Amino acid sequence: MAKQKKSEGLLGQLRVPSGPVDLTKYDTRATPGFSGTKEEGKVALEELGAEVSDWQERLFAEGRKGGQRSVLLVLQGMDTSGKGGVIRHGAGLMDPQGLRITSFKAPTPAEKRRGFLWRIRQALPGPGMIGIFDRSHYEDVLIARVRNLVAPPVWNRRYEQINDFEAELAANGVTLLKYFLHISPEEQKTRLEARLDDPTKHWKYNPGDVDERELWPAYVEAYHAALERCNGPEAPWYVIPSDRKWYRNWAVTTILLETLRSLDPQWPIADFDVTTEKKRLAST
Amino acid sequence: MAKQKKSEGLLGQLRVPSGPVDLTKYDTRATPGFSGTKEEGKVALEELGAEVSDWQERLFAEGRKGGQRSVLLVLQGMDTSGKGGVIRHGAGLMDPQGLRITSFKAPTPAEKRRGFLWRIRQALPGPGMIGIFDRSHYEDVLIARVRNLVAPPVWNRRYEQINDFEAELAANGVTLLKYFLHISPEEQKTRLEARLDDPTKHWKYNPGDVDERELWPAYVEAYHAALERCNGPEAPWYVIPSDRKWYRNWAVTTILLETLRSLDPQWPIADFDVTTEKKRLAST
Repeated sequence: MAKQKKSEGLLGQLRVPSGPVDLTKYDTRATPGFSGTKEEGKVALEELGAEVSDWQERLFAEGRKGGQRSVLLVLQGMDTSGKGGVIRHGAGLMDPQGLRITSFKAPTPAEKRRGFLWRIRQALPGPGMIGIFDRSHYEDVLIARVRNLVAPPVWNRRYEQINDFEAELAANGVTLLKYFLHISPEEQKTRLEARLDDPTKHWKYNPGDVDERELWPAYVEAYHAALERCNGPEAPWYVIPSDRKWYRNWAVTTILLETLRSLDPQWPIADFDVTTEKKRLAST
Repeated sequence: MAKQKKSEGLLGQLRVPSGPVDLTKYDTRATPGFSGTKEEGKVALEELGAEVSDWQERLFAEGRKGGQRSVLLVLQGMDTSGKGGVIRHGAGLMDPQGLRITSFKAPTPAEKRRGFLWRIRQALPGPGMIGIFDRSHYEDVLIARVRNLVAPPVWNRRYEQINDFEAELAANGVTLLKYFLHISPEEQKTRLEARLDDPTKHWKYNPGDVDERELWPAYVEAYHAALERCNGPEAPWYVIPSDRKWYRNWAVTTILLETLRSLDPQWPIADFDVTTEKKRLAST
Protein backbone atom coordinates (compact mmCIF):
# COMPACT_ATOMS: atom_id res chain seq x y z
CA MET A 1 0.00 0.00 0.00
CA ALA A 2 2.98 2.30 0.44
CA LYS A 3 3.16 2.31 -3.33
CA GLN A 4 -0.14 4.11 -3.73
CA LYS A 5 -0.04 7.09 -6.01
CA LYS A 6 -1.55 10.47 -5.40
CA SER A 7 -3.91 9.81 -8.28
CA GLU A 8 -5.58 7.25 -6.03
CA GLY A 9 -7.35 9.97 -4.13
CA LEU A 10 -7.11 11.42 -0.67
CA LEU A 11 -7.02 7.89 0.66
CA GLY A 12 -3.69 7.39 -1.10
CA GLN A 13 -2.34 10.76 0.02
CA LEU A 14 -3.04 10.37 3.72
CA ARG A 15 -2.30 6.66 4.02
CA VAL A 16 0.60 5.98 6.39
CA PRO A 17 3.31 4.14 4.45
CA SER A 18 4.61 0.92 5.95
CA GLY A 19 7.75 1.18 8.04
CA PRO A 20 8.77 3.51 10.86
CA VAL A 21 6.53 6.50 11.52
CA ASP A 22 7.61 9.98 12.55
CA LEU A 23 4.61 12.14 13.33
CA THR A 24 6.78 15.24 13.73
CA LYS A 25 7.19 15.13 9.94
CA TYR A 26 3.47 15.61 9.39
CA ASP A 27 2.21 19.19 9.34
CA THR A 28 -0.87 19.40 11.57
CA ARG A 29 -2.12 22.55 9.79
CA ALA A 30 -1.74 21.23 6.24
CA THR A 31 -4.76 20.65 4.01
CA PRO A 32 -3.60 18.03 1.51
CA GLY A 33 -6.02 17.53 -1.35
CA PHE A 34 -7.93 20.72 -0.62
CA SER A 35 -6.90 24.14 -1.80
CA GLY A 36 -9.88 26.27 -0.77
CA THR A 37 -10.72 28.38 2.25
CA LYS A 38 -12.35 27.36 5.51
CA GLU A 39 -15.76 28.44 4.27
CA GLU A 40 -15.26 26.51 1.05
CA GLY A 41 -14.19 23.49 3.07
CA LYS A 42 -17.39 23.58 5.07
CA VAL A 43 -19.45 23.79 1.90
CA ALA A 44 -17.42 20.97 0.35
CA LEU A 45 -18.22 18.77 3.35
CA GLU A 46 -21.94 19.46 3.07
CA GLU A 47 -21.74 18.63 -0.61
CA LEU A 48 -20.41 15.17 0.20
CA GLY A 49 -23.59 14.44 2.13
CA ALA A 50 -25.79 13.28 -0.73
CA GLU A 51 -23.28 10.89 -2.24
CA VAL A 52 -22.06 9.44 1.03
CA SER A 53 -25.67 8.90 2.14
CA ASP A 54 -26.49 7.17 -1.11
CA TRP A 55 -23.59 4.73 -0.73
CA GLN A 56 -24.47 4.22 2.90
CA GLU A 57 -28.00 3.23 1.96
CA ARG A 58 -26.76 0.83 -0.72
CA LEU A 59 -24.45 -0.81 1.77
CA PHE A 60 -27.29 -1.01 4.29
CA ALA A 61 -29.62 -2.53 1.67
CA GLU A 62 -26.98 -5.10 0.75
CA GLY A 63 -26.69 -6.02 4.44
CA ARG A 64 -30.44 -6.51 4.67
CA LYS A 65 -30.37 -8.97 1.80
CA GLY A 66 -27.64 -11.30 2.94
CA GLY A 67 -24.53 -9.21 2.29
CA GLN A 68 -21.92 -9.45 5.03
CA ARG A 69 -19.87 -6.34 4.37
CA SER A 70 -19.53 -3.44 6.75
CA VAL A 71 -17.20 -0.50 7.34
CA LEU A 72 -15.53 0.40 10.61
CA LEU A 73 -13.99 3.80 11.33
CA VAL A 74 -11.57 3.91 14.23
CA LEU A 75 -10.95 7.41 15.57
CA GLN A 76 -7.86 8.00 17.64
CA GLY A 77 -6.05 11.14 18.66
CA MET A 78 -4.96 13.22 21.61
CA ASP A 79 -7.61 14.90 23.80
CA THR A 80 -9.43 17.67 21.89
CA SER A 81 -8.25 16.33 18.53
CA GLY A 82 -11.88 16.23 17.46
CA LYS A 83 -13.16 12.67 17.51
CA GLY A 84 -16.54 13.96 18.59
CA GLY A 85 -16.50 16.74 16.02
CA VAL A 86 -15.87 14.28 13.21
CA ILE A 87 -18.87 12.25 14.31
CA ARG A 88 -21.12 15.29 14.69
CA HIS A 89 -20.20 16.94 11.40
CA GLY A 90 -19.09 14.03 9.21
CA ALA A 91 -21.16 11.08 10.38
CA GLY A 92 -23.98 13.55 10.98
CA LEU A 93 -24.39 13.76 7.21
CA MET A 94 -25.52 10.15 7.09
CA ASP A 95 -28.64 8.29 8.13
CA PRO A 96 -28.23 7.50 11.83
CA GLN A 97 -29.99 4.16 11.29
CA GLY A 98 -27.00 2.89 9.37
CA LEU A 99 -24.44 3.99 11.97
CA ARG A 100 -23.25 2.18 15.04
CA ILE A 101 -21.25 4.52 17.23
CA THR A 102 -19.38 3.40 20.31
CA SER A 103 -17.39 5.60 22.64
CA PHE A 104 -14.86 3.63 24.67
CA LYS A 105 -14.06 4.86 28.14
CA ALA A 106 -11.77 3.24 30.71
CA PRO A 107 -12.72 -0.44 30.81
CA THR A 108 -14.76 -1.67 33.76
CA PRO A 109 -13.41 -4.48 35.95
CA ALA A 110 -15.86 -6.88 34.25
CA GLU A 111 -14.58 -5.83 30.83
CA LYS A 112 -10.96 -6.21 31.89
CA ARG A 113 -11.55 -9.76 33.04
CA ARG A 114 -12.74 -10.70 29.57
CA GLY A 115 -9.63 -9.52 27.76
CA PHE A 116 -9.14 -6.19 26.02
CA LEU A 117 -10.76 -7.23 22.73
CA TRP A 118 -13.98 -8.55 24.23
CA ARG A 119 -15.79 -5.24 24.47
CA ILE A 120 -14.48 -4.26 21.05
CA ARG A 121 -16.07 -7.36 19.51
CA GLN A 122 -19.38 -6.50 21.18
CA ALA A 123 -19.39 -3.17 19.39
CA LEU A 124 -18.60 -4.32 15.84
CA PRO A 125 -20.96 -3.10 13.12
CA GLY A 126 -23.42 -5.65 11.78
CA PRO A 127 -23.81 -6.38 8.06
CA GLY A 128 -24.40 -3.23 6.03
CA MET A 129 -23.59 -0.92 8.91
CA ILE A 130 -20.95 1.77 9.28
CA GLY A 131 -19.39 1.43 12.71
CA ILE A 132 -17.57 4.28 14.38
CA PHE A 133 -15.26 3.83 17.34
CA ASP A 134 -14.48 6.93 19.40
CA ARG A 135 -11.26 5.51 20.85
CA SER A 136 -10.79 1.79 20.49
CA HIS A 137 -8.61 -1.22 21.23
CA TYR A 138 -5.67 1.07 20.47
CA GLU A 139 -6.07 2.61 23.91
CA ASP A 140 -4.81 -0.74 25.17
CA VAL A 141 -1.42 0.01 23.59
CA LEU A 142 -1.60 3.77 24.21
CA ILE A 143 -2.78 4.83 27.67
CA ALA A 144 -2.15 1.30 28.91
CA ARG A 145 1.48 1.60 27.81
CA VAL A 146 2.07 5.23 28.78
CA ARG A 147 0.42 4.86 32.17
CA ASN A 148 1.80 1.40 32.91
CA LEU A 149 -1.71 0.04 33.40
CA VAL A 150 -0.37 -3.37 32.49
CA ALA A 151 3.14 -4.83 32.50
CA PRO A 152 5.28 -4.26 29.38
CA PRO A 153 5.11 -7.89 28.20
CA VAL A 154 1.32 -7.61 28.26
CA TRP A 155 1.01 -4.49 26.12
CA ASN A 156 3.85 -5.66 23.95
CA ARG A 157 1.94 -8.81 23.03
CA ARG A 158 -1.10 -6.80 22.11
CA TYR A 159 0.24 -5.48 18.80
CA GLU A 160 0.17 -8.97 17.34
CA GLN A 161 -3.16 -9.68 18.98
CA ILE A 162 -4.52 -6.55 17.32
CA ASN A 163 -3.07 -7.59 13.96
CA ASP A 164 -4.69 -11.01 14.24
CA PHE A 165 -7.98 -9.44 15.26
CA GLU A 166 -7.94 -6.94 12.42
CA ALA A 167 -7.06 -9.65 9.90
CA GLU A 168 -10.07 -11.58 11.16
CA LEU A 169 -12.26 -8.52 10.67
CA ALA A 170 -11.07 -8.13 7.09
CA ALA A 171 -11.76 -11.81 6.43
CA ASN A 172 -15.28 -11.28 7.79
CA GLY A 173 -16.02 -8.44 5.39
CA VAL A 174 -15.23 -5.48 7.63
CA THR A 175 -13.41 -2.67 5.83
CA LEU A 176 -11.35 -0.94 8.46
CA LEU A 177 -10.33 2.72 8.31
CA LYS A 178 -8.12 3.86 11.15
CA TYR A 179 -7.75 7.60 11.54
CA PHE A 180 -5.18 9.37 13.65
CA LEU A 181 -6.43 12.93 14.17
CA HIS A 182 -3.18 14.79 14.38
CA ILE A 183 -3.02 18.07 16.30
CA SER A 184 -0.07 20.05 17.62
CA PRO A 185 0.44 20.54 21.35
CA GLU A 186 -0.10 24.29 20.82
CA GLU A 187 -3.48 23.65 19.21
CA GLN A 188 -4.46 21.40 22.10
CA LYS A 189 -3.56 24.14 24.55
CA THR A 190 -5.74 26.61 22.65
CA ARG A 191 -8.66 24.18 22.65
CA LEU A 192 -8.36 23.36 26.34
CA GLU A 193 -8.21 27.10 27.11
CA ALA A 194 -11.37 27.56 25.07
CA ARG A 195 -13.10 24.90 27.14
CA LEU A 196 -12.07 26.61 30.35
CA ASP A 197 -13.18 30.02 29.07
CA ASP A 198 -16.67 28.88 28.08
CA PRO A 199 -19.04 27.70 30.84
CA THR A 200 -21.07 25.74 28.26
CA LYS A 201 -17.92 23.69 27.60
CA HIS A 202 -16.85 23.06 31.19
CA TRP A 203 -18.49 19.64 31.12
CA LYS A 204 -16.03 18.61 28.42
CA TYR A 205 -13.04 19.54 30.54
CA ASN A 206 -11.38 17.13 32.89
CA PRO A 207 -8.42 18.10 35.08
CA GLY A 208 -6.90 14.79 34.02
CA ASP A 209 -6.55 16.26 30.52
CA VAL A 210 -3.67 18.40 31.74
CA ASP A 211 -1.98 15.40 33.33
CA GLU A 212 -2.28 13.53 30.03
CA ARG A 213 -0.99 16.56 28.17
CA GLU A 214 2.21 16.47 30.19
CA LEU A 215 2.80 12.98 28.87
CA TRP A 216 2.59 14.17 25.24
CA PRO A 217 6.01 12.81 24.19
CA ALA A 218 5.23 9.40 25.68
CA TYR A 219 1.94 9.32 23.78
CA VAL A 220 3.67 10.26 20.55
CA GLU A 221 6.08 7.38 21.11
CA ALA A 222 3.18 5.00 21.77
CA TYR A 223 1.39 6.22 18.62
CA HIS A 224 4.57 5.67 16.61
CA ALA A 225 4.64 2.05 17.76
CA ALA A 226 0.94 1.50 17.02
CA LEU A 227 1.09 3.14 13.60
CA GLU A 228 4.16 1.14 12.68
CA ARG A 229 3.32 -2.24 14.14
CA CYS A 230 -0.39 -2.37 13.28
CA ASN A 231 -0.57 -1.04 9.76
CA GLY A 232 -1.25 -4.01 7.52
CA PRO A 233 -2.60 -3.66 3.97
CA GLU A 234 -6.13 -4.38 5.14
CA ALA A 235 -5.93 -2.33 8.32
CA PRO A 236 -4.55 0.99 7.13
CA TRP A 237 -3.86 4.09 9.19
CA TYR A 238 -4.56 7.57 7.88
CA VAL A 239 -2.95 10.59 9.51
CA ILE A 240 -5.41 13.47 9.30
CA PRO A 241 -3.96 16.95 9.86
CA SER A 242 -6.46 18.21 12.42
CA ASP A 243 -5.50 21.65 13.60
CA ARG A 244 -8.09 22.94 11.14
CA LYS A 245 -11.38 21.40 12.17
CA TRP A 246 -13.07 21.97 8.84
CA TYR A 247 -10.28 20.15 6.98
CA ARG A 248 -10.31 17.27 9.46
CA ASN A 249 -14.06 16.73 8.98
CA TRP A 250 -13.80 16.97 5.22
CA ALA A 251 -10.80 14.63 5.00
CA VAL A 252 -12.28 11.92 7.22
CA THR A 253 -15.52 11.98 5.26
CA THR A 254 -13.76 12.04 1.89
CA ILE A 255 -11.73 8.96 2.76
CA LEU A 256 -14.91 7.20 3.82
CA LEU A 257 -16.58 8.24 0.58
CA GLU A 258 -13.67 6.99 -1.52
CA THR A 259 -13.81 3.71 0.36
CA LEU A 260 -17.55 3.31 -0.17
CA ARG A 261 -17.08 4.01 -3.88
CA SER A 262 -14.49 1.25 -4.12
CA LEU A 263 -16.76 -1.17 -2.24
CA ASP A 264 -19.39 -0.22 -4.81
CA PRO A 265 -22.44 -1.80 -3.13
CA GLN A 266 -25.34 -2.35 -5.52
CA TRP A 267 -29.08 -2.23 -4.93
CA PRO A 268 -30.16 -5.80 -4.23
CA ILE A 269 -32.11 -7.61 -6.93
CA ALA A 270 -35.69 -8.45 -5.95
CA ASP A 271 -35.98 -11.89 -4.39
CA PHE A 272 -39.68 -12.01 -5.34
CA ASP A 273 -41.57 -11.80 -8.62
CA VAL A 274 -42.38 -8.14 -9.15
CA THR A 275 -45.30 -8.72 -11.55
CA THR A 276 -46.94 -11.21 -9.19
CA GLU A 277 -46.57 -8.81 -6.28
CA LYS A 278 -48.04 -5.91 -8.24
CA LYS A 279 -51.11 -8.04 -8.98
CA ARG A 280 -51.44 -9.17 -5.39
CA LEU A 281 -51.17 -5.61 -4.17
CA ALA A 282 -53.64 -4.31 -6.76
CA SER A 283 -56.23 -6.80 -5.55
CA THR A 284 -56.13 -5.48 -1.97
CA MET B 1 -53.37 14.89 30.35
CA ALA B 2 -56.62 14.82 28.39
CA LYS B 3 -57.21 18.29 29.76
CA GLN B 4 -54.25 19.78 27.90
CA LYS B 5 -55.07 22.94 26.01
CA LYS B 6 -54.00 23.79 22.48
CA SER B 7 -51.91 26.54 23.93
CA GLU B 8 -49.68 23.82 25.31
CA GLY B 9 -48.16 23.27 21.92
CA LEU B 10 -48.27 20.53 19.35
CA LEU B 11 -47.67 18.08 22.14
CA GLY B 12 -51.05 19.02 23.57
CA GLN B 13 -52.78 18.92 20.21
CA LEU B 14 -51.63 15.47 19.16
CA ARG B 15 -51.77 13.80 22.55
CA VAL B 16 -54.27 10.92 22.62
CA PRO B 17 -56.85 11.67 25.34
CA SER B 18 -57.48 8.97 27.89
CA GLY B 19 -60.38 6.65 27.21
CA PRO B 20 -61.44 4.67 24.15
CA VAL B 21 -59.63 5.43 20.91
CA ASP B 22 -61.11 5.53 17.42
CA LEU B 23 -58.42 6.01 14.82
CA THR B 24 -60.98 6.39 12.03
CA LYS B 25 -61.78 9.79 13.54
CA TYR B 26 -58.25 11.05 12.92
CA ASP B 27 -57.56 12.53 9.48
CA THR B 28 -54.34 11.00 8.16
CA ARG B 29 -53.78 13.92 5.77
CA ALA B 30 -54.31 16.68 8.30
CA THR B 31 -51.50 19.03 9.33
CA PRO B 32 -52.49 20.24 12.80
CA GLY B 33 -50.36 23.10 14.04
CA PHE B 34 -48.87 23.80 10.61
CA SER B 35 -50.54 25.93 7.99
CA GLY B 36 -47.84 26.15 5.33
CA THR B 37 -47.02 24.23 2.18
CA LYS B 38 -44.91 21.10 1.79
CA GLU B 39 -41.86 23.14 0.87
CA GLU B 40 -42.38 25.39 3.86
CA GLY B 41 -42.77 22.30 6.04
CA LYS B 42 -39.43 20.96 4.90
CA VAL B 43 -37.76 24.29 5.63
CA ALA B 44 -39.48 24.44 9.02
CA LEU B 45 -38.06 21.03 9.90
CA GLU B 46 -34.53 22.09 8.96
CA GLU B 47 -34.97 25.18 11.08
CA LEU B 48 -35.67 23.05 14.14
CA GLY B 49 -32.22 21.48 13.77
CA ALA B 50 -30.18 24.06 15.65
CA GLU B 51 -32.45 24.25 18.68
CA VAL B 52 -33.09 20.54 18.97
CA SER B 53 -29.34 19.86 18.69
CA ASP B 54 -28.61 22.40 21.38
CA TRP B 55 -31.04 20.78 23.81
CA GLN B 56 -29.74 17.37 22.88
CA GLU B 57 -26.21 18.44 23.76
CA ARG B 58 -27.34 19.90 27.07
CA LEU B 59 -29.11 16.67 27.95
CA PHE B 60 -26.02 14.72 26.91
CA ALA B 61 -23.78 16.96 29.02
CA GLU B 62 -26.08 16.51 32.02
CA GLY B 63 -25.83 12.74 31.53
CA ARG B 64 -22.06 12.91 31.53
CA LYS B 65 -22.04 14.72 34.84
CA GLY B 66 -24.25 12.43 36.89
CA GLY B 67 -27.69 13.28 35.51
CA GLN B 68 -29.93 10.27 35.01
CA ARG B 69 -32.50 11.65 32.59
CA SER B 70 -33.02 10.39 29.07
CA VAL B 71 -35.69 10.52 26.38
CA LEU B 72 -37.13 7.56 24.54
CA LEU B 73 -39.08 7.83 21.31
CA VAL B 74 -41.18 4.81 20.41
CA LEU B 75 -42.17 4.69 16.74
CA GLN B 76 -45.10 2.49 15.78
CA GLY B 77 -47.24 2.35 12.68
CA MET B 78 -48.32 0.17 9.79
CA ASP B 79 -45.76 -0.85 7.18
CA THR B 80 -44.59 2.15 5.12
CA SER B 81 -45.88 4.61 7.71
CA GLY B 82 -42.42 6.10 7.81
CA LYS B 83 -40.62 5.04 10.93
CA GLY B 84 -37.36 4.99 8.98
CA GLY B 85 -38.11 8.34 7.36
CA VAL B 86 -38.64 9.98 10.73
CA ILE B 87 -35.28 8.72 11.88
CA ARG B 88 -33.48 9.77 8.70
CA HIS B 89 -34.98 13.25 8.46
CA GLY B 90 -35.86 14.08 12.07
CA ALA B 91 -33.25 12.29 14.15
CA GLY B 92 -30.79 13.03 11.35
CA LEU B 93 -30.82 16.67 12.48
CA MET B 94 -29.17 15.69 15.75
CA ASP B 95 -25.72 14.57 16.77
CA PRO B 96 -25.61 10.81 16.20
CA GLN B 97 -23.42 10.41 19.29
CA GLY B 98 -26.36 11.30 21.49
CA LEU B 99 -28.78 8.89 19.79
CA ARG B 100 -29.34 5.24 20.49
CA ILE B 101 -31.45 3.72 17.73
CA THR B 102 -32.79 0.19 17.84
CA SER B 103 -34.84 -1.50 15.18
CA PHE B 104 -36.81 -4.44 16.53
CA LYS B 105 -37.42 -7.38 14.20
CA ALA B 106 -39.14 -10.66 15.01
CA PRO B 107 -37.64 -11.89 18.30
CA THR B 108 -35.13 -14.71 18.14
CA PRO B 109 -35.79 -17.93 20.10
CA ALA B 110 -33.20 -16.82 22.67
CA GLU B 111 -34.98 -13.48 23.07
CA LYS B 112 -38.38 -15.14 23.42
CA ARG B 113 -37.12 -17.34 26.22
CA ARG B 114 -36.18 -14.27 28.23
CA GLY B 115 -39.61 -12.68 28.11
CA PHE B 116 -40.76 -9.98 25.72
CA LEU B 117 -39.37 -7.05 27.70
CA TRP B 118 -35.85 -8.40 28.05
CA ARG B 119 -34.56 -7.20 24.71
CA ILE B 120 -36.34 -3.89 25.20
CA ARG B 121 -34.48 -3.31 28.45
CA GLN B 122 -31.18 -4.06 26.70
CA ALA B 123 -31.87 -1.23 24.26
CA LEU B 124 -32.84 1.54 26.70
CA PRO B 125 -30.98 4.83 26.32
CA GLY B 126 -28.32 5.57 28.90
CA PRO B 127 -28.22 8.83 30.89
CA GLY B 128 -28.35 11.88 28.64
CA MET B 129 -29.19 9.89 25.54
CA ILE B 130 -32.15 10.08 23.19
CA GLY B 131 -33.28 6.55 22.44
CA ILE B 132 -35.34 5.71 19.38
CA PHE B 133 -37.21 2.47 18.96
CA ASP B 134 -38.24 1.52 15.43
CA ARG B 135 -41.04 -0.81 16.55
CA SER B 136 -40.96 -1.84 20.18
CA HIS B 137 -42.56 -3.90 22.94
CA TYR B 138 -45.89 -2.85 21.41
CA GLU B 139 -45.37 -5.44 18.68
CA ASP B 140 -45.96 -7.97 21.46
CA VAL B 141 -49.56 -6.76 21.70
CA LEU B 142 -49.89 -6.00 17.97
CA ILE B 143 -48.54 -8.66 15.60
CA ALA B 144 -48.47 -11.13 18.50
CA ARG B 145 -52.20 -10.55 19.02
CA VAL B 146 -53.24 -10.28 15.37
CA ARG B 147 -51.21 -13.29 14.29
CA ASN B 148 -51.97 -15.39 17.38
CA LEU B 149 -48.26 -15.76 18.07
CA VAL B 150 -49.14 -16.32 21.71
CA ALA B 151 -52.37 -17.38 23.41
CA PRO B 152 -54.89 -14.61 24.27
CA PRO B 153 -54.29 -14.74 28.03
CA VAL B 154 -50.61 -14.15 27.34
CA TRP B 155 -51.00 -11.05 25.20
CA ASN B 156 -53.84 -9.86 27.37
CA ARG B 157 -51.59 -9.81 30.42
CA ARG B 158 -49.00 -7.79 28.56
CA TYR B 159 -50.86 -4.47 28.70
CA GLU B 160 -50.42 -4.33 32.44
CA GLN B 161 -46.86 -5.57 32.16
CA ILE B 162 -46.18 -2.76 29.73
CA ASN B 163 -47.79 -0.22 32.05
CA ASP B 164 -45.65 -1.42 34.95
CA PHE B 165 -42.54 -1.33 32.77
CA GLU B 166 -43.26 2.17 31.49
CA ALA B 167 -43.98 3.43 35.02
CA GLU B 168 -40.60 2.05 36.03
CA LEU B 169 -38.97 3.91 33.14
CA ALA B 170 -40.57 7.16 34.20
CA ALA B 171 -39.41 6.62 37.77
CA ASN B 172 -35.88 6.09 36.43
CA GLY B 173 -35.84 9.40 34.58
CA VAL B 174 -36.84 8.23 31.12
CA THR B 175 -39.25 10.58 29.36
CA LEU B 176 -41.26 8.43 27.02
CA LEU B 177 -42.83 9.70 23.79
CA LYS B 178 -44.88 7.12 21.94
CA TYR B 179 -45.79 8.00 18.37
CA PHE B 180 -48.36 6.27 16.24
CA LEU B 181 -47.61 7.20 12.63
CA HIS B 182 -51.07 7.15 11.17
CA ILE B 183 -51.53 6.49 7.44
CA SER B 184 -54.59 5.50 5.45
CA PRO B 185 -54.77 2.14 3.68
CA GLU B 186 -54.86 4.01 0.37
CA GLU B 187 -51.63 5.80 1.18
CA GLN B 188 -50.02 2.50 2.12
CA LYS B 189 -51.05 1.04 -1.23
CA THR B 190 -49.48 3.97 -3.05
CA ARG B 191 -46.26 3.58 -1.11
CA LEU B 192 -46.04 -0.17 -1.66
CA GLU B 193 -46.67 0.39 -5.39
CA ALA B 194 -43.86 2.92 -5.42
CA ARG B 195 -41.53 0.36 -3.87
CA LEU B 196 -42.46 -2.19 -6.53
CA ASP B 197 -42.03 0.34 -9.33
CA ASP B 198 -38.53 1.39 -8.29
CA PRO B 199 -35.73 -1.22 -8.44
CA THR B 200 -33.72 0.80 -5.91
CA LYS B 201 -36.56 0.22 -3.45
CA HIS B 202 -37.14 -3.48 -4.05
CA TRP B 203 -35.01 -4.34 -1.03
CA LYS B 204 -37.55 -2.56 1.17
CA TYR B 205 -40.42 -4.66 -0.15
CA ASN B 206 -41.43 -7.93 1.42
CA PRO B 207 -44.27 -10.08 0.02
CA GLY B 208 -45.38 -10.49 3.63
CA ASP B 209 -46.28 -6.78 3.58
CA VAL B 210 -49.34 -7.60 1.46
CA ASP B 211 -50.35 -10.37 3.86
CA GLU B 212 -50.12 -7.91 6.73
CA ARG B 213 -52.04 -5.34 4.75
CA GLU B 214 -54.96 -7.73 4.44
CA LEU B 215 -55.14 -7.81 8.23
CA TRP B 216 -55.50 -3.99 8.41
CA PRO B 217 -58.76 -4.01 10.43
CA ALA B 218 -57.32 -6.46 12.95
CA TYR B 219 -54.26 -4.23 13.36
CA VAL B 220 -56.45 -1.18 13.86
CA GLU B 221 -58.32 -3.05 16.58
CA ALA B 222 -55.05 -4.05 18.22
CA TYR B 223 -53.80 -0.45 18.05
CA HIS B 224 -57.03 0.75 19.63
CA ALA B 225 -56.45 -1.59 22.56
CA ALA B 226 -52.81 -0.54 22.95
CA LEU B 227 -53.56 3.19 22.69
CA GLU B 228 -56.37 2.89 25.20
CA ARG B 229 -54.87 0.49 27.71
CA CYS B 230 -51.30 1.79 27.75
CA ASN B 231 -51.70 5.55 27.79
CA GLY B 232 -50.80 6.71 31.27
CA PRO B 233 -49.90 10.32 32.09
CA GLU B 234 -46.19 9.53 31.99
CA ALA B 235 -46.38 7.27 28.94
CA PRO B 236 -48.36 9.32 26.44
CA TRP B 237 -49.29 8.36 22.89
CA TYR B 238 -49.29 10.88 20.08
CA VAL B 239 -51.16 10.17 16.86
CA ILE B 240 -49.21 11.73 14.00
CA PRO B 241 -51.11 12.20 10.74
CA SER B 242 -48.56 10.64 8.37
CA ASP B 243 -49.91 10.59 4.84
CA ARG B 244 -47.83 13.71 4.29
CA LYS B 245 -44.25 12.72 4.99
CA TRP B 246 -43.03 16.26 5.50
CA TYR B 247 -45.69 16.93 8.14
CA ARG B 248 -44.96 13.66 9.91
CA ASN B 249 -41.24 14.48 10.17
CA TRP B 250 -41.92 18.01 11.35
CA ALA B 251 -44.53 16.95 13.91
CA VAL B 252 -42.44 14.17 15.47
CA THR B 253 -39.47 16.51 15.78
CA THR B 254 -41.56 19.38 17.12
CA ILE B 255 -42.99 17.20 19.88
CA LEU B 256 -39.48 16.09 20.79
CA LEU B 257 -38.35 19.71 20.82
CA GLU B 258 -41.22 20.79 23.06
CA THR B 259 -40.40 17.92 25.39
CA LEU B 260 -36.71 18.84 25.56
CA ARG B 261 -37.67 22.45 26.30
CA SER B 262 -39.81 21.32 29.21
CA LEU B 263 -37.02 19.09 30.53
CA ASP B 264 -34.84 22.21 30.31
CA PRO B 265 -31.44 20.56 30.83
CA GLN B 266 -28.75 23.03 31.92
CA TRP B 267 -25.04 23.10 31.20
CA PRO B 268 -23.36 21.38 34.15
CA ILE B 269 -21.45 23.53 36.59
CA ALA B 270 -17.70 22.87 36.65
CA ASP B 271 -16.72 20.28 39.25
CA PHE B 272 -13.18 21.69 39.30
CA ASP B 273 -11.69 25.08 40.08
CA VAL B 274 -11.52 26.99 36.80
CA THR B 275 -8.80 29.43 37.91
CA THR B 276 -6.57 26.64 39.17
CA GLU B 277 -6.99 24.74 35.95
CA LYS B 278 -6.20 27.77 33.82
CA LYS B 279 -2.96 28.18 35.74
CA ARG B 280 -2.07 24.52 35.46
CA LEU B 281 -2.75 24.58 31.74
CA ALA B 282 -0.80 27.80 31.22
CA SER B 283 2.26 26.23 32.82
CA THR B 284 2.36 23.35 30.30
